Amino acid sequence: MARTEPARGMRDFLPEDVRRREHVIGVITAVYERYGFEPLETPAVENLETLLGKYGDEGNQLIFKILKRGEHEASGQADLALRYDLTVPLARVIAHHQSRLPRLFRRYQIQPVWRADRPARGRFREFYQCDVDALGSTSPVVEAEVCAAVSDALEALGFDDFVIRVNHRQMLTDVLNAAGVTPDRHATALVALDKLDKVGLADVKGELADRGVSAESIRAISGLHESAKVFGENAPKGAESSLTMLRGLGETYDTMSSVVTGDAGENLRLVFEAIGQTSAASRVVYDPFLARGLSYYTGAIMEINVADLAGSLGGGGRYDDLVGMFLGQPVPACGFSLGLERILVVMAERDMFPAPLHGSAADVMVSVFEAAGSPHALRLAGLLRAAGLRVIVYPDADKIGKQIKYADSLGIPRVALLGSDEIAAGTVTVRTLAARTQEIHPQEAAAAAILEALRRRG
Amino acid sequence: MARTEPARGMRDFLPEDVRRREHVIGVITAVYERYGFEPLETPAVENLETLLGKYGDEGNQLIFKILKRGEHEASGQADLALRYDLTVPLARVIAHHQSRLPRLFRRYQIQPVWRADRPARGRFREFYQCDVDALGSTSPVVEAEVCAAVSDALEALGFDDFVIRVNHRQMLTDVLNAAGVTPDRHATALVALDKLDKVGLADVKGELADRGVSAESIRAISGLHESAKVFGENAPKGAESSLTMLRGLGETYDTMSSVVTGDAGENLRLVFEAIGQTSAASRVVYDPFLARGLSYYTGAIMEINVADLAGSLGGGGRYDDLVGMFLGQPVPACGFSLGLERILVVMAERDMFPAPLHGSAADVMVSVFEAAGSPHALRLAGLLRAAGLRVIVYPDADKIGKQIKYADSLGIPRVALLGSDEIAAGTVTVRTLAARTQEIHPQEAAAAAILEALRRRG
Repeated sequence: MARTEPARGMRDFLPEDVRRREHVIGVITAVYERYGFEPLETPAVENLETLLGKYGDEGNQLIFKILKRGEHEASGQADLALRYDLTVPLARVIAHHQSRLPRLFRRYQIQPVWRADRPARGRFREFYQCDVDALGSTSPVVEAEVCAAVSDALEALGFDDFVIRVNHRQMLTDVLNAAGVTPDRHATALVALDKLDKVGLADVKGELADRGVSAESIRAISGLHESAKVFGENAPKGAESSLTMLRGLGETYDTMSSVVTGDAGENLRLVFEAIGQTSAASRVVYDPFLARGLSYYTGAIMEINVADLAGSLGGGGRYDDLVGMFLGQPVPACGFSLGLERILVVMAERDMFPAPLHGSAADVMVSVFEAAGSPHALRLAGLLRAAGLRVIVYPDADKIGKQIKYADSLGIPRVALLGSDEIAAGTVTVRTLAARTQEIHPQEAAAAAILEALRRRG
Repeated sequence: MARTEPARGMRDFLPEDVRRREHVIGVITAVYERYGFEPLETPAVENLETLLGKYGDEGNQLIFKILKRGEHEASGQADLALRYDLTVPLARVIAHHQSRLPRLFRRYQIQPVWRADRPARGRFREFYQCDVDALGSTSPVVEAEVCAAVSDALEALGFDDFVIRVNHRQMLTDVLNAAGVTPDRHATALVALDKLDKVGLADVKGELADRGVSAESIRAISGLHESAKVFGENAPKGAESSLTMLRGLGETYDTMSSVVTGDAGENLRLVFEAIGQTSAASRVVYDPFLARGLSYYTGAIMEINVADLAGSLGGGGRYDDLVGMFLGQPVPACGFSLGLERILVVMAERDMFPAPLHGSAADVMVSVFEAAGSPHALRLAGLLRAAGLRVIVYPDADKIGKQIKYADSLGIPRVALLGSDEIAAGTVTVRTLAARTQEIHPQEAAAAAILEALRRRG
């Protein structure tokens, strides 16, 4: 007897799970299409070299690698890998299919990715990302559009309390410079800062010290963090407040003025101004310490949070250099990714799913009293299905009580009974389980009668 | 500059490809739901031991194996693997979640599988299977229902010329016994016979000899093959003709009479009788040499073919022992799998896709004459989207001619122009590209005007 559980960190989705997932994917897709994004799909498996070196050291270690096949299998070498995100494959696609794609390409992609991460609440080793990305423009309009698209998607799902934190990768570098962190410590300092919202300032200060950041720089970062918190708590969220906060940071906190007025600060101002004209205007907040783990970001970075979930519902940003790694010439790009599983976890806990999802597998089940009736059951089922009804044929000639109990346990509202009398007369007895009523119809007329009853119920 | 092609045998799907795939999946799903099948999804990755030993030797060699992670990676050992089909994972799910599933469980599952096969026309290393399976009953009603479901699905897609070949795995064994093939040669003989429709009788005879089947047995098989061909050509296809052929085989061909009247022959007769009462009645044909490669089948086996495709559009059968390998107690099961890529290849070559699939990415594109107009463009886009329109904002202040050319190249029928005059007046100029006409509307009224124009066009 073999093991029956799914692989670690992976899950089976039973019918009710799948319906919930499909519901959420459907709502998100409809919003993404309203923004003119077009669907794209890429293989689950990529050449290993396509993925390596794109996600930083921590990312590289979480990639699932696939053994070479055939005689090479014994070598233990890997040449393929499972997709780690949808962004690097997109960059590869842009480079490979450039002649077939429009100069400005907007795509959405809703597919699973795999990471050999430690499983936790809402964190799995196979999970779906729901991405939108726009390629070919450096305009802050793009940042605004992707923020608005994910914001509309979450609102369409019923979320009304999420926050989109926004920062700028280059501005974060400027902040580290202003705090006196030497450039060779930037990458390691960012890994520590990325954990700020998860572990808090005290732990991050310890980790910064462990990673070789000077005590003086840690004090500067810590001071700025205190200021930022004041801004954050005083100011209500929203694009206007974020702009005020951005300005205030330069005015109040001395070493920051050059950061705020630099290229990155200026770009972030334009991004907030653009977002201010969209449906996401009230959702955004400036977070000067938002870091985002992935190494390919170059400009604005974003992350969505709700209070009752550690970690984010999604994130994104600008990555103007990634396509160039495949194409040899730069293509500016910016995108946003929603995490399907995170959304589902919160929606389940908050009971946000609409009731009609919990429908039954069929409108009617066809039952026979003896095996000789089965051909008649199949024929009747064909008639009912041709009329558009969803129909199960109970396959065995079990006792009728057992058959009806089965239909009831599945929530199937009606059973069409074919006994020898019905078969001889060409009729069928349709029993409505909840009402405990039944009617006899000619077999050819049963579909119309059931459809009429369904219509009457609304 | 890195490689940009997808991994060998895998493909990227650009928007038009995805829309075609989604169309086919949608049609198949609707039919499967009409048969009361419920959706199930399983992880792409399974524990390696779950898959090994289920598909026969040829199958085992085509499984993509995943390296252990972390410090174990250097060992070159694999502990996980990519899903090879949807049937073995289903059997694992039935065993694992038995208490949460109904006694008779009918599920559909449309997901990719991976096989390290040699790529060919319609054969890829990542491909989607569209499966229906019914568990918990040995009744031939189940075989009839899964045949009818896939038959209806293909008809709904527009196919009218497919044939469902039907045989019985145990009857095939009986045939081999009747031909004097010793039991120890059965498995290897089946591998050769499975290629009959691909390579023809002459090659199969050679391969049978190579695999150690005696000359006498090969003559017997060859003789039966000739008889079967006569039956096949004389009789029109359909359940009735298949029954006639099945009877005729026993009467005409001496050593076959015990095969036809045995348990397997009797079961196959009941299967054809049941199919005869469904919408698949005219599609089936008895093929006494159909073998199906996978080793888990135990009863009726089926395969769908069209004339213009080597290989099958799908296949299936009964596998009453597979769940027991996980559960320790038998659960009868039978299913059918359609190959999405095969269907797409034939539909593309026959030009079977409905025209409305080739729609544009958006109903309208919003354009600005200068960057200062972008905030207005974003606000207008929000108004249009709120009314349900699909809208792209052109992100840059390129020359208007270039912007309109871009919209035209994407097939977007309308451009909403915001110049300084429009912005000052709170209006927008809506240009219809094909008609070369334009109208000025107040921005708040533009959505209603465009929707009205869309309605008028039908």
